[in-house]
Amino acid sequence: MIDPPSLVDQYCHGVLRTELGLGTFEAQLARSEGPPAPGTTLFDTQTGFAVRRWCPPLLGLEPHCPPARYLARRRELGVVETGRRLLRASGITTYLVDTGLPGDLTGTAELATVGAAEAHEIVRLEQLAEQVADTSGTVESFLANLAESVHGAAAHAVAFTSVAGIRRGPALAPQPPGPGEVRGAAARWLAARRVGGELSDPVLLRHLLWIAVASGRPLQLHAGLGAPGLRPEATDPALLDGFVRATAGLGTDLVLLHGYPDHRHAARLAGVYPHVYVDSGAALARTGAGAATVLAEVLELAPFGKILFSSGAQGLPELHVVGARLFREALARVLGGWVAEGAWALDDARRVAKMIASGNAGRVYGLE
Amino acid sequence: MIDPPSLVDQYCHGVLRTELGLGTFEAQLARSEGPPAPGTTLFDTQTGFAVRRWCPPLLGLEPHCPPARYLARRRELGVVETGRRLLRASGITTYLVDTGLPGDLTGTAELATVGAAEAHEIVRLEQLAEQVADTSGTVESFLANLAESVHGAAAHAVAFTSVAGIRRGPALAPQPPGPGEVRGAAARWLAARRVGGELSDPVLLRHLLWIAVASGRPLQLHAGLGAPGLRPEATDPALLDGFVRATAGLGTDLVLLHGYPDHRHAARLAGVYPHVYVDSGAALARTGAGAATVLAEVLELAPFGKILFSSGAQGLPELHVVGARLFREALARVLGGWVAEGAWALDDARRVAKMIASGNAGRVYGLE
Amino acid sequence: MIDPPSLVDQYCHGVLRTELGLGTFEAQLARSEGPPAPGTTLFDTQTGFAVRRWCPPLLGLEPHCPPARYLARRRELGVVETGRRLLRASGITTYLVDTGLPGDLTGTAELATVGAAEAHEIVRLEQLAEQVADTSGTVESFLANLAESVHGAAAHAVAFTSVAGIRRGPALAPQPPGPGEVRGAAARWLAARRVGGELSDPVLLRHLLWIAVASGRPLQLHAGLGAPGLRPEATDPALLDGFVRATAGLGTDLVLLHGYPDHRHAARLAGVYPHVYVDSGAALARTGAGAATVLAEVLELAPFGKILFSSGAQGLPELHVVGARLFREALARVLGGWVAEGAWALDDARRVAKMIASGNAGRVYGLE
Repeated sequence: MIDPPSLVDQYCHGVLRTELGLGTFEAQLARSEGPPAPGTTLFDTQTGFAVRRWCPPLLGLEPHCPPARYLARRRELGVVETGRRLLRASGITTYLVDTGLPGDLTGTAELATVGAAEAHEIVRLEQLAEQVADTSGTVESFLANLAESVHGAAAHAVAFTSVAGIRRGPALAPQPPGPGEVRGAAARWLAARRVGGELSDPVLLRHLLWIAVASGRPLQLHAGLGAPGLRPEATDPALLDGFVRATAGLGTDLVLLHGYPDHRHAARLAGVYPHVYVDSGAALARTGAGAATVLAEVLELAPFGKILFSSGAQGLPELHVVGARLFREALARVLGGWVAEGAWALDDARRVAKMIASGNAGRVYGLE
Repeated sequence: MIDPPSLVDQYCHGVLRTELGLGTFEAQLARSEGPPAPGTTLFDTQTGFAVRRWCPPLLGLEPHCPPARYLARRRELGVVETGRRLLRASGITTYLVDTGLPGDLTGTAELATVGAAEAHEIVRLEQLAEQVADTSGTVESFLANLAESVHGAAAHAVAFTSVAGIRRGPALAPQPPGPGEVRGAAARWLAARRVGGELSDPVLLRHLLWIAVASGRPLQLHAGLGAPGLRPEATDPALLDGFVRATAGLGTDLVLLHGYPDHRHAARLAGVYPHVYVDSGAALARTGAGAATVLAEVLELAPFGKILFSSGAQGLPELHVVGARLFREALARVLGGWVAEGAWALDDARRVAKMIASGNAGRVYGLE
Repeated sequence: MIDPPSLVDQYCHGVLRTELGLGTFEAQLARSEGPPAPGTTLFDTQTGFAVRRWCPPLLGLEPHCPPARYLARRRELGVVETGRRLLRASGITTYLVDTGLPGDLTGTAELATVGAAEAHEIVRLEQLAEQVADTSGTVESFLANLAESVHGAAAHAVAFTSVAGIRRGPALAPQPPGPGEVRGAAARWLAARRVGGELSDPVLLRHLLWIAVASGRPLQLHAGLGAPGLRPEATDPALLDGFVRATAGLGTDLVLLHGYPDHRHAARLAGVYPHVYVDSGAALARTGAGAATVLAEVLELAPFGKILFSSGAQGLPELHVVGARLFREALARVLGGWVAEGAWALDDARRVAKMIASGNAGRVYGLE
């Protein structure tokens, strides 16, 4: 009844190009600090169960088959054919790809080819700054090259993204740092840094966010669930309020990624600020059978024109599939339930489903 | 099966006296900072959908009709007749009205007449202090007049309310400020202030809260969803804990308004402290089809004798209707579901429904 | 369909040995600061309703009978027979008992006898330190005796628990305090202390936690709902992140108790850190008819091998019954619902139910 014809995945990564064993596959199912506890397996998670539900049938096996059988079939088909079958069954027609992760992952063009879909690049600001630092000799050249690189990337990238922002940047001071402050921070960072060193200086991170804001491309900010290393108490999207307020009216849209478990706070920011959008998808692949609850909570306060879908998938094409299937199913159940109760009209439900699945992303990112 | 015969709306505002167009009506549907984002409309929100569900039939139209048709019918009937029809269909028999908002809104007596209901005034502390400042010549007269005004208001008002409290007052220091501190803050504020200037000094706000506590009238504190300008990270009702603790045993009840999205924290305070009550209604009009979920969460931890209903409505009589209808429906669904499962007895469910709808408010506010 | 045969209650207390009247029984139903508000009763809470649902039939009365009739029947049977009937009907086969509460409560062995079950002791660190302080003459002997007592307790106790930790300990500084700092804090505390005085010094609390970590026994940390006196804004399990991070890889498991209303934050820590486990039970007895919602939220992000059951019961055997019944019912409803939708396989659901009910606890606490 309510099933959007196509999905724009507004935030994901490429898939691994290497064959995976049971252990290496399992390790991709969650973002934990260290191996599973003794006596436990990451297959016994909502994500693991969702993969076992949706993916085996796409490779010719029964749903919920044991992980070892699934991995054997996966190796039999090979990583390329597995990726083709899975991605093409996901229902995703456009991928926006954050290419800033390490590892042997498919790039934007390759993901498009494998998935028979469109794909556009999202540029990760921290990585861009680290690359610029690797090739800049002086503080002056670093700062000039940084600004030039961000503006150059804005010409081809569909969006910018920042992982570390919430942690060390905008929560501390919403305003852009002054030129002297930036110069001093750059000098200290460059002097202490070896090639490949990570950017974690809060002044430079803020500077970077503000260059990106000036470019006018949508800026995706990670909050809530994120990469290991983020301190959980510092990931509440409500902490972004100062930065959000400072960037209001400048013409650049902010997209809050993940959000969960504080996704209601993220939805609220999308309700209060015209330039703020909220992701409704990435948490679904992590919460599996609980996805409809989480999606319904995002739909409580966020205006329907401000909600976007993403899989948040990384490494395994299974995660793109699971993100897309859980989203479609949760959306149909939640909106369909409201229609059945008489709370929503069916036409409105179909219209909103299409907005969240693809329409809002098309408008925000300027996809044709 | 479970439907309380009458509702006491323990927190709302008057309705606009002027005719509204599509845009001015839409602007009342949410409390956002700025106009809707390009390509979006505030009708595409839970509040917008709830208005389209419940209100058109009260004006002779089919549910979910397009906003433009609804607004045309509204203008055809005129603002007075629309208000009469809507308010009288809300099921609300008593309104407690915060009269401290600007704009051409009906006052307490007028709302009672239009709605064929009783109405009592809630006095907004910040506004009272600003009015006193407008007419007091010296620090001494300001402080004396302030105390006198609050105690005077306590004689006719049914409650006090404070919007800014959570932000700048009790979260910072739960105890009342000393006389010298108050005098200094008053001197600085009055010297810098022009007529009509807002009260935002944290010392004076705390002073004001403590004068109100001394009056013995129930004190309503805004938390969670509130007016634009509140910083989302500073609205968690848990931040009120220090003030709540400091006021325990003094004989004055505190009522936590809104709460959402941290309503479970508000419910918890109502469970721990005998003098704390929690609002279950205002968030419902904002979360629409998700209202039953939010109400069930409030009912998890708050004792049933500590939960109150409000519409939180402001400006549009549609919001009084939507708040009341969503509350009744959510209450019937949540309690009815528990009865159907055998978790609750039907008699208990009916009794609790009546307590939340009107009985608790009658007792707390001393309504006959 | 999904009903685990036995339960390990990984955190509870003994039951009162004295006959109770209506008022003294009611006072055990919640942990509030002071008596119920005028016009309200703690029987009108989710816990009160759950007790009235589950317990009367076990004493030969109809469900939901009035509290006065239930209490009359309870006195008729006597406290011993009531305890036998209730505990033996709970389905709990192993109790882990925190014996550190004051009051005339059954101890570990007595609870085992009354309940016809196994029971093991959990040692409360704060109480242990206070007992050591009562019998140590000097700072040196206190510190030596403290270390010896904790290691001695580790030989017979199944786990340690700390109530005050989240409040004054790990949230402030995750690392163990230095020897000089500990000595200074001990000297100040012992000098100011009278016999029986409570331990609340943050340095000594941190020192105590780290001695416990060194013992290798699982360490249970209270977060979320807790004893009165905990400040609500300081109970979010996310605040434990620093301590959790500092104890990773040391070989000692941490178990986050309660968690509610921030149980999603606790579940998240269990997902990120291999040595962190999360309690799913204690909040259920407090949220009653809402228990399935809360349990489902814990199951969103916590790996299924990291979730444990507890009743959190204290004082009344009714609370052990209610905790166990609500858990079984919520588990069957939540997992059964996912099986019915096709999201989970039935075999997986049964396996996970058994893990959460008893298997995970058996492994973590080394129960045979």
